[in-house]
Amino acid sequence: MSAQPTPTMTPCPIGINATGSRQEEDSLGSMSIPADRYWGAQTQRSLIHFSIGGDHMPLSLYHAYGTVKKAAALVNAAEGRLPAWKAELIAQVADEVSAGKLDAHFPLSVWQTGSGTQTNMNVNEVIANRAIQLAGGVIGSKTPVHPNDDVNMGQSSNDSFPTAMHVATLLEIEDRLIPSVQHLVDALSSKAAAWKDVVKIGRTHLQDAVPLTVGQEWSGWACLLQDALDVLKTSREGLYALAAGGTAVGTGLNAPPGFSVAMAQQIAQLTGRPFITAPNKFAALSGLDAMARASAGLRAVAIPLLKIANDMRWLASGPRCGLGELILPENEPGSSIMPGKVNPTQCEALVMIATQVLGHDNTVAFAASQGQLDLNVMRPLILANCLHSIRILADGCHNFRVFSVEGTQLNTARIEQYVAGSVMLVTALNPVIGYDKAAQIAHIAMEHDLPLREAALRSGFVDAQTFDSAVNPLAMVGHGVGGA
Amino acid sequence: MSAQPTPTMTPCPIGINATGSRQEEDSLGSMSIPADRYWGAQTQRSLIHFSIGGDHMPLSLYHAYGTVKKAAALVNAAEGRLPAWKAELIAQVADEVSAGKLDAHFPLSVWQTGSGTQTNMNVNEVIANRAIQLAGGVIGSKTPVHPNDDVNMGQSSNDSFPTAMHVATLLEIEDRLIPSVQHLVDALSSKAAAWKDVVKIGRTHLQDAVPLTVGQEWSGWACLLQDALDVLKTSREGLYALAAGGTAVGTGLNAPPGFSVAMAQQIAQLTGRPFITAPNKFAALSGLDAMARASAGLRAVAIPLLKIANDMRWLASGPRCGLGELILPENEPGSSIMPGKVNPTQCEALVMIATQVLGHDNTVAFAASQGQLDLNVMRPLILANCLHSIRILADGCHNFRVFSVEGTQLNTARIEQYVAGSVMLVTALNPVIGYDKAAQIAHIAMEHDLPLREAALRSGFVDAQTFDSAVNPLAMVGHGVGGA
Amino acid sequence: MSAQPTPTMTPCPIGINATGSRQEEDSLGSMSIPADRYWGAQTQRSLIHFSIGGDHMPLSLYHAYGTVKKAAALVNAAEGRLPAWKAELIAQVADEVSAGKLDAHFPLSVWQTGSGTQTNMNVNEVIANRAIQLAGGVIGSKTPVHPNDDVNMGQSSNDSFPTAMHVATLLEIEDRLIPSVQHLVDALSSKAAAWKDVVKIGRTHLQDAVPLTVGQEWSGWACLLQDALDVLKTSREGLYALAAGGTAVGTGLNAPPGFSVAMAQQIAQLTGRPFITAPNKFAALSGLDAMARASAGLRAVAIPLLKIANDMRWLASGPRCGLGELILPENEPGSSIMPGKVNPTQCEALVMIATQVLGHDNTVAFAASQGQLDLNVMRPLILANCLHSIRILADGCHNFRVFSVEGTQLNTARIEQYVAGSVMLVTALNPVIGYDKAAQIAHIAMEHDLPLREAALRSGFVDAQTFDSAVNPLAMVGHGVGGA
Amino acid sequence: MSAQPTPTMTPCPIGINATGSRQEEDSLGSMSIPADRYWGAQTQRSLIHFSIGGDHMPLSLYHAYGTVKKAAALVNAAEGRLPAWKAELIAQVADEVSAGKLDAHFPLSVWQTGSGTQTNMNVNEVIANRAIQLAGGVIGSKTPVHPNDDVNMGQSSNDSFPTAMHVATLLEIEDRLIPSVQHLVDALSSKAAAWKDVVKIGRTHLQDAVPLTVGQEWSGWACLLQDALDVLKTSREGLYALAAGGTAVGTGLNAPPGFSVAMAQQIAQLTGRPFITAPNKFAALSGLDAMARASAGLRAVAIPLLKIANDMRWLASGPRCGLGELILPENEPGSSIMPGKVNPTQCEALVMIATQVLGHDNTVAFAASQGQLDLNVMRPLILANCLHSIRILADGCHNFRVFSVEGTQLNTARIEQYVAGSVMLVTALNPVIGYDKAAQIAHIAMEHDLPLREAALRSGFVDAQTFDSAVNPLAMVGHGVGGA
Repeated sequence: MSAQPTPTMTPCPIGINATGSRQEEDSLGSMSIPADRYWGAQTQRSLIHFSIGGDHMPLSLYHAYGTVKKAAALVNAAEGRLPAWKAELIAQVADEVSAGKLDAHFPLSVWQTGSGTQTNMNVNEVIANRAIQLAGGVIGSKTPVHPNDDVNMGQSSNDSFPTAMHVATLLEIEDRLIPSVQHLVDALSSKAAAWKDVVKIGRTHLQDAVPLTVGQEWSGWACLLQDALDVLKTSREGLYALAAGGTAVGTGLNAPPGFSVAMAQQIAQLTGRPFITAPNKFAALSGLDAMARASAGLRAVAIPLLKIANDMRWLASGPRCGLGELILPENEPGSSIMPGKVNPTQCEALVMIATQVLGHDNTVAFAASQGQLDLNVMRPLILANCLHSIRILADGCHNFRVFSVEGTQLNTARIEQYVAGSVMLVTALNPVIGYDKAAQIAHIAMEHDLPLREAALRSGFVDAQTFDSAVNPLAMVGHGVGGA
Repeated sequence: MSAQPTPTMTPCPIGINATGSRQEEDSLGSMSIPADRYWGAQTQRSLIHFSIGGDHMPLSLYHAYGTVKKAAALVNAAEGRLPAWKAELIAQVADEVSAGKLDAHFPLSVWQTGSGTQTNMNVNEVIANRAIQLAGGVIGSKTPVHPNDDVNMGQSSNDSFPTAMHVATLLEIEDRLIPSVQHLVDALSSKAAAWKDVVKIGRTHLQDAVPLTVGQEWSGWACLLQDALDVLKTSREGLYALAAGGTAVGTGLNAPPGFSVAMAQQIAQLTGRPFITAPNKFAALSGLDAMARASAGLRAVAIPLLKIANDMRWLASGPRCGLGELILPENEPGSSIMPGKVNPTQCEALVMIATQVLGHDNTVAFAASQGQLDLNVMRPLILANCLHSIRILADGCHNFRVFSVEGTQLNTARIEQYVAGSVMLVTALNPVIGYDKAAQIAHIAMEHDLPLREAALRSGFVDAQTFDSAVNPLAMVGHGVGGA
Repeated sequence: MSAQPTPTMTPCPIGINATGSRQEEDSLGSMSIPADRYWGAQTQRSLIHFSIGGDHMPLSLYHAYGTVKKAAALVNAAEGRLPAWKAELIAQVADEVSAGKLDAHFPLSVWQTGSGTQTNMNVNEVIANRAIQLAGGVIGSKTPVHPNDDVNMGQSSNDSFPTAMHVATLLEIEDRLIPSVQHLVDALSSKAAAWKDVVKIGRTHLQDAVPLTVGQEWSGWACLLQDALDVLKTSREGLYALAAGGTAVGTGLNAPPGFSVAMAQQIAQLTGRPFITAPNKFAALSGLDAMARASAGLRAVAIPLLKIANDMRWLASGPRCGLGELILPENEPGSSIMPGKVNPTQCEALVMIATQVLGHDNTVAFAASQGQLDLNVMRPLILANCLHSIRILADGCHNFRVFSVEGTQLNTARIEQYVAGSVMLVTALNPVIGYDKAAQIAHIAMEHDLPLREAALRSGFVDAQTFDSAVNPLAMVGHGVGGA
Repeated sequence: MSAQPTPTMTPCPIGINATGSRQEEDSLGSMSIPADRYWGAQTQRSLIHFSIGGDHMPLSLYHAYGTVKKAAALVNAAEGRLPAWKAELIAQVADEVSAGKLDAHFPLSVWQTGSGTQTNMNVNEVIANRAIQLAGGVIGSKTPVHPNDDVNMGQSSNDSFPTAMHVATLLEIEDRLIPSVQHLVDALSSKAAAWKDVVKIGRTHLQDAVPLTVGQEWSGWACLLQDALDVLKTSREGLYALAAGGTAVGTGLNAPPGFSVAMAQQIAQLTGRPFITAPNKFAALSGLDAMARASAGLRAVAIPLLKIANDMRWLASGPRCGLGELILPENEPGSSIMPGKVNPTQCEALVMIATQVLGHDNTVAFAASQGQLDLNVMRPLILANCLHSIRILADGCHNFRVFSVEGTQLNTARIEQYVAGSVMLVTALNPVIGYDKAAQIAHIAMEHDLPLREAALRSGFVDAQTFDSAVNPLAMVGHGVGGA
């Protein structure tokens, strides 16, 4: 293709000052485009054919795509395949995309082609037209910047879309989710430390068990969530490997040697994350396993959240007819009919969120298994589910922490009352009199509704001194917040 | 409570001509509300505490809630518990809610209290304030229309929210989904009829099998989807039973005898659907099983859609290196790098939609199992998943039909070529020479790469006349589109 | 094929008095078979190639297959395609199969070909060899009874396997599961009736709510389960439609006209269930939707079981540090370390079972969506999951009823104590003084830890007489077990 | 408790030479036990109360439990809490348990108490009675070895059962699954290497795309599976952390300081795996997250298996009417009605297995989220699902490799024919003439059914020399098996 003259750049704000429509062409013919939109014919076709539901492709994907397009322009220029002025122009517009300034020009649905081609073309078209505008050209003319030949140079949707998926998902996990979960872990740990010496009754099978401290119980929650967070971090690993450079089927057709490595390096530099080129491009295009593994990381977080939020609302049940050990903050009236009722609403929201995440993860795993031959065309589905899970998990953990965990207080009177009344402290007698006699004492206590000490003495198996030295709740909780 | 004088109504358009904020009270104190919004203190609290993600409670739920509030006003008035003027006023505003005119005043998230109380209060507050405006009162004053005492009269969120859920879900299924699926069944059936005599090769285990007609194959698809549609229709049954009248825990406290029956009748009349009062209110409040069963109906539709869309894209695979029996409409360029490529994008979108629906259904089933004691607080989650599934299924079926099924054509040359070449027609010889000899003929054909007829004659097991009378593809496809 | 002479029958007990091995042939060559087994070469091949795990194809499938083979023999004889003596012989052996007398000769794994062909051939081979034995022939000779030409006459695995699946699943649901669930519903209803007047505190969001009776709460459970049982019954519908007669792809090739109708009638007569021929054989072979819908019926049962078992163990939590309203039977010591501990183990087992069923259902739905072209080859998987769910649900409901529900008792002292202490009875004051003032009373009670009556009087909003007439737990629970 | 004399050991083979029944006691009373069984009263109670289905607790769990009991005996002896002779005796019997010699004495169901207490007691009882037998005591007398006080010393089911779960699951993953998957990866890689230069047509969206080599395609499969295997290995991490020492609720009550560390060290030594003590015992008892993460590792393996097996059977579809690029080994006749048919049965079995694993994983994730307060009582369920997945995955990968992958051959004639005919090679012209003109050439080829070269020349956009130098399949597949 012949060399183009360098156009004069004419800085102008984002926006097309036009009304009505314009015509644009693609390989199937001409389309009518709203005159004030940057998108082109293929985006318009998608709008028509995929007018399905209200689910827009997530904006963070477009922002990541800006990075991918900028990287491609820079690499192509460095290799002499794209004139410097054109690369700079594309990079400049790509920055506008990444900054969210062109969000209004990305209207497509999640429910489109499974490769994400239409969204890639949406990005190509918008960048081309905005670049043309800046270069003083005619919008829609594909001159001097062509959506396929220039903006998409060295790329296929098949490799650039999963690249953008990985970048978007990774940034959302790192910048949005991990901090939110970590803050929640910290808040739980902080409570665990504060209450490390408050002895309470344990409950296994929901039945009274031997005592532990409130701090120990909360340390268990913190540990479960911290472990999950560690798993989430590990689950990022596959996301660092980028498909860019594989082009249409993984062979790198139409991209020069070294393109894939250069792309990964450029994206790493632009984002400050250690992206690398995927070692096998055929796997990177035909599978979405890295996304499914990231989703497993999200699920790993959801699982303890379900447990913690459920435990918290049960322990706060009451105020008078429940367990009543915890007092959660009163954020809003709880009932439209029962005056004065306050409910564990943050727990409820978090439980719903975690349940949604489990369902999304199920969708992702199924979809990841459905790749066919040289492409998995479940991409928008998998992306949308993962990003949605990340968003609601992050926000949910934040609100749960701020509006529920941090303000939780203990009902110490109730907690002490349970410890005093429980029969299961008898377990401490096992090493002294053996399991069978201890069991008899427990039966006496329950049958005659006696305090444990009285039942023990009545049994004749222990004297008062032995009982008092063995059955001491404070001594039964071991050492340290982490347990044995 | 003392009687109120009938206020003078002052018709005014929707909208509050004010800027800044106003104060409103609820039982926990005072809140600052945007002055141009109808909502009150409890909505505002929810906005603060549940700033999670971008998932708004679906609008169709609010529209259904308008019906519920109108019905309650009418029933309360008929029973003399609410002054006629107040009931009429509430009903008038409820109509505005149902018509979507107050949509901008329902800002709450799906991720809120699990009972939906905050959304119920949002509806109560908006209706009260809009009614107050029409009655010439001071917005936020709760006079002369009180959100709890008047708009919520005889109700709890615990019974009114699931009532609105059922109404919203049922209407969406009946008005949006069923027609869309039925049209798709009809389009498939129409193709089946058109192609009822086109003989093609069957494929079982993906391996060449005995022939059938294209029409028979499509009739199978139509039948699977029609059966699923019938299941969907049956799955509505539980939705007709309404919780209204159970109030806080199912006993109907604060609602007069007969209220539940009257509510169901009123809602049935307003919607034109055969709603009834739920026979057991404790089940209706503590379970969400009817929603889970409706979700199973949605899943029943998703399952054959996955199969049909997958089959269709495989049969259209090619154009030169695939099965190539079907030619799908070319709606858009398929690749940003491969010129002239056209992909089965409608199939892909439908496959993703159906997969999403399976995941949502999994979420719903899990959530439905998580009811605790006298309330299941997974309501917004279940509602949002069901309504989302309905929406994308309905739109997906519509677009799949219009942009793919209706324009599908046959590659008859390819179809005939397969029939002519297949070895599996040998099956027709079983009744003549037995399975074992027929198998030998098949082996001869494959081993020597011979046409079946030639292999059969070479085997010596049949003569030409016998072969020709037994092995006739047209005679092997049986009678009728439905098969044997 | 030429006519065979009628052999002389030689009655002999089941069993082959031989050691070592014998050789049998199929179309791929000769195989060595254990001499004391009735199966043939194809079964032996499957044993070698599918030595996977320990999951045997469920015996109830084989028993159902006996019915299918008998029906085919009778229909073929009636149509003159099979000599009467041969049909009688096959029918006689098929009865032995259905009675479980040949169970030891069906060794194949669930993890085999997805069509079930190997199991069909296992049945064909066993019936043929046992018939040959009775006819005085040489086992393995395929004379005078041939596994394909005679036992499989007019059939393909493609139609006979799903026929046997439907028969097996239906019988298991009807004979095993439905009675077990119904007995559990009855037991719950019986408790509901017994405790219909015992007032207890309601709990919504796990927080104290207005009262209901124990009987009402249990009636809710019974209603949820009865509704699920009704759904299960409805979910059988698709199972009544049989694929038999469709043969290889649905066209009925090699089966005479009317064969499919005659087969369904014969199976209906043999089983006493209203089986019919599937109206569309292409759907019946290429889809397994009827099984997926039956699985949705199983899930419908699992959902309320999870709720009921969870509620029950929470209400029985304690004995001293939990809700403690229910006392479950003590079936076994609950702890290897804590003497005297008794746990809600039947609830736990049922919760695990129900969770397993939800997972199995997820597998089934996924698998049902994975049909390809003219056959869905996920059959053994779907069958095994459904039959497993049926079995554990049936047994689980039985044991849960006998060992937990029926022996459950009330801790009436605890129940009364909760009612006396709850603040939420204030709700009954709403109609008298309005929601806002009632909320103030509730706050006074909680803040000063007062009984509700005292707080109400202190508030000055009501006098003692008004309070006592409005706040009466017995009057707050409405009328009838079903609620409002 | 008083010191016991050291009994004289009387070596005797496993087995109790008795008939009828004997009586044994536990804290709830006396039970009748089959005289020839080693188990005691609590096992017998469980047999009665949990006669549910046919699912036995997996034997590998018991074998692991032997290791746990041996470790406890050794640690208790080292700390002077258990006489050396008794510890040795217990260790000796525990070895018998681990070696599977006492399998017949572990009859309990998966569907039992959710803590696994009954299985722990089964182990305690069997070891005690077998030890008593060896010590010359009276079986059932609990003397000189007591099931609770001696065999269970320093333990609770609450910590010992998850310890045994981790040991069993880890060993099964390491010894059974990882080698099987690795061998399959190697077989795939071997094929990739063998076919690295065979050019074939790529297929994206199932539509003809640009070429790649067969080796590249297979390398993608190998990479996907190898990556999954790496994830599986990582997913073991949580399993190394053992709950032992936490006893009843995590505090370590009745176990001496250091017991948990010593137990982990002992188990590590006995198994040769790097087990450590769980850093937080409250998390280890109340959560089963490590198991859920291991299950995610199993799922990670199942996902690419589904893709690979599906791709393989599609590429082998035909033989005459499908894609027909691959020729799979013929292991068995494929049809009971269609002679000569051979089906991709190993692929089908593997697809069913992988689908089962996805469903099991869903069950595990759900169950892991359902922990309540200080214990998660979904243990047997989670264990059974994980171990089942491991078993069928391992066996499935083995058989798939041996009976399908290793014997797969190429149909090179077919493969070459596709490459020669495809239009998508036009993509190589993009850098020469631009995307738009290349698209026009593709349209000409399709519209007039021309070879690509002829269409290109007819278009006038390229001459023959340019075409031939640009469009060269061998040059389009890039370098190296891994792609760009």
